[in-house]
Amino acid sequence: MELDPHAPVAELARQLIDIPSVSGDESAIADAVEAALRTAPHLEVLRDGNAVLARTALDRAHRVILAGHLDTVPIKANVPATMSADGTELIGRGACDMKAGDAVFLSLAVALAEPTYDLTWIFYDLEEVEATRNGLGRIARNHPAWLEGDFAILGEPTSGAIEGGCSGTLRAEVRVAGVAAHSARSWKGVNAIHGVGPLLATLAAYNAETVTVDGLEYREGMNAVGIRGGIAGNVIPDECVVTINYRFAPAWSVAEAQDRLKHVVANAGLSSWDLTFTDLAPGARPGLDDPLAEGFVQAVTAASGMPARAKLGWTDVARFGELGIPAVNFGPGNPELAHADNESCPVSEIDQCRAALAAWLTEED
Amino acid sequence: MELDPHAPVAELARQLIDIPSVSGDESAIADAVEAALRTAPHLEVLRDGNAVLARTALDRAHRVILAGHLDTVPIKANVPATMSADGTELIGRGACDMKAGDAVFLSLAVALAEPTYDLTWIFYDLEEVEATRNGLGRIARNHPAWLEGDFAILGEPTSGAIEGGCSGTLRAEVRVAGVAAHSARSWKGVNAIHGVGPLLATLAAYNAETVTVDGLEYREGMNAVGIRGGIAGNVIPDECVVTINYRFAPAWSVAEAQDRLKHVVANAGLSSWDLTFTDLAPGARPGLDDPLAEGFVQAVTAASGMPARAKLGWTDVARFGELGIPAVNFGPGNPELAHADNESCPVSEIDQCRAALAAWLTEED
Repeated sequence: MELDPHAPVAELARQLIDIPSVSGDESAIADAVEAALRTAPHLEVLRDGNAVLARTALDRAHRVILAGHLDTVPIKANVPATMSADGTELIGRGACDMKAGDAVFLSLAVALAEPTYDLTWIFYDLEEVEATRNGLGRIARNHPAWLEGDFAILGEPTSGAIEGGCSGTLRAEVRVAGVAAHSARSWKGVNAIHGVGPLLATLAAYNAETVTVDGLEYREGMNAVGIRGGIAGNVIPDECVVTINYRFAPAWSVAEAQDRLKHVVANAGLSSWDLTFTDLAPGARPGLDDPLAEGFVQAVTAASGMPARAKLGWTDVARFGELGIPAVNFGPGNPELAHADNESCPVSEIDQCRAALAAWLTEED
Repeated sequence: MELDPHAPVAELARQLIDIPSVSGDESAIADAVEAALRTAPHLEVLRDGNAVLARTALDRAHRVILAGHLDTVPIKANVPATMSADGTELIGRGACDMKAGDAVFLSLAVALAEPTYDLTWIFYDLEEVEATRNGLGRIARNHPAWLEGDFAILGEPTSGAIEGGCSGTLRAEVRVAGVAAHSARSWKGVNAIHGVGPLLATLAAYNAETVTVDGLEYREGMNAVGIRGGIAGNVIPDECVVTINYRFAPAWSVAEAQDRLKHVVANAGLSSWDLTFTDLAPGARPGLDDPLAEGFVQAVTAASGMPARAKLGWTDVARFGELGIPAVNFGPGNPELAHADNESCPVSEIDQCRAALAAWLTEED
């Protein structure tokens, strides 16, 4: 299947949807993207597995990285793409997450021979699966020089707004201990499920902060997302485990966030407990207070009418955060339709995102 | 394998242990017990599946039922039986639960041709498995006339004391509802796990009653014995289910006990919940205030030095309770060793239980 990077961008998005690329099966789409990029003489192209990278080398003062994943969640009778009856919506697997964003990037990668900044374009694989297989992570290990830059844009769906940075997330298991006993003689035991009551009360009463980072407001949350306890219907349980998810503003490092969670648990009034972190993912600062990003914010705000806002869900922008590169999410499509069977994207948003990005990338420095 | 019902009772217990009889595999032991009972001309014998029943027909004023199960939990390299080095403990699967008790009953069934009361002896199968398969329950359905009587003794291990009646037990699932949301935007949801906090606090503070029934004290208990909640590590849970086990004194019917539990849950301050009963088992009154049982209590107390006490765990005496027959547990062996790999029973308790029971069953009315 061939791609035409010079086609109208919504048509290019349709072509990308029509190449199935469920995670782990991205070779056909990577081949097509690589072929399209290699038609542009101003780009140096690199293939790494089923990721394709391209970059300019114009000795500009700054370099911007633009990245999007090529894989999708499994297809649900929604490939090939279709168009809504009124011609305003592109419908199909990946329309929103995130082949419309890929189309914007691929179209501009080939079109912009003389951008204001040096540009690095990354089309990667394995984003919709476990983090250890993530293509962007693999690139960071195999080709760290290709991830050098001053600002990064991830083309995840944001309805065409800028969603800056992302909150961090961590999970911890709090294990409350008791003493098992036959439930007919319950006073001989210590009920661990009853023992978690004060922790649940503490979490229910927890007043999550809203933290301003680089001008954007990150609303936090600390929640029990899992609980388990009980051995049998006639046994006083000797253990109850609560899984807590803390979504923290990128003002805090992972270590700081761990301390904040530990402080809450330690002050909950539990009698016998321990805490184990099971998942740690840093946030990313948005960097929108950097002069480099100012023009971008202006261009997008003018086009979309939506001010930049904080990204609360965790995305791969955090991988740039770890490298010290401020990063934002920016792409066409309603993120609430990601992974939905009726995934779709307004054609107008695809056009608008391309136009806003083109304007910024070619404005005078 | 043959049994010698005229052997010393601890030797008969050893013989019973040496016939493996894990639940569902009781035909060999039932055959042997049936053969032993049929040697006694004063007994009418009935075989029902792998249960064996025998009874006198002496036109006595009262009839006492004595019942014990023949099956055991799975063997753990503890069959055949062994004797402790000092000769005081019989060791093996079922030594405690409850072939020592079976031996006492089988020995007396054959020996007592002229008891003070008419006697019905029941050796039954499938006690250690789900209640619907229980052999005593099957006999109640197939041969209700064989379960007519004025007082019942179940030979479960009680260290040779009388443990009267039993507490009832019921289980209920309390389901607290919430509203699911992505945990990065937790304020859009309602956390069902946080929502059970007030219920756990109520249960932790619950002041269980001690209720006197027929002169024995039944200490109650109301406990969470299970809890589950959570969909995924990034989702605010929309449901949390707490399983509560209420052990109630036989002063209350099942319906009354249900009402008592519902009252506690309804006053816990939950916001959105429902309650489903998953298990209901009535208690049994001990009937020790009946003149019929007075001599029994005196004989056992004199022999064991232990006063009659309430049975708190649920046992098959409740099946007699349902038939309106007061019932007690009485047998050799420490109940805490039931099902243990090192299950054993003191020889002296086996002898003492037989002697106390023989004394009562032959005393002048």
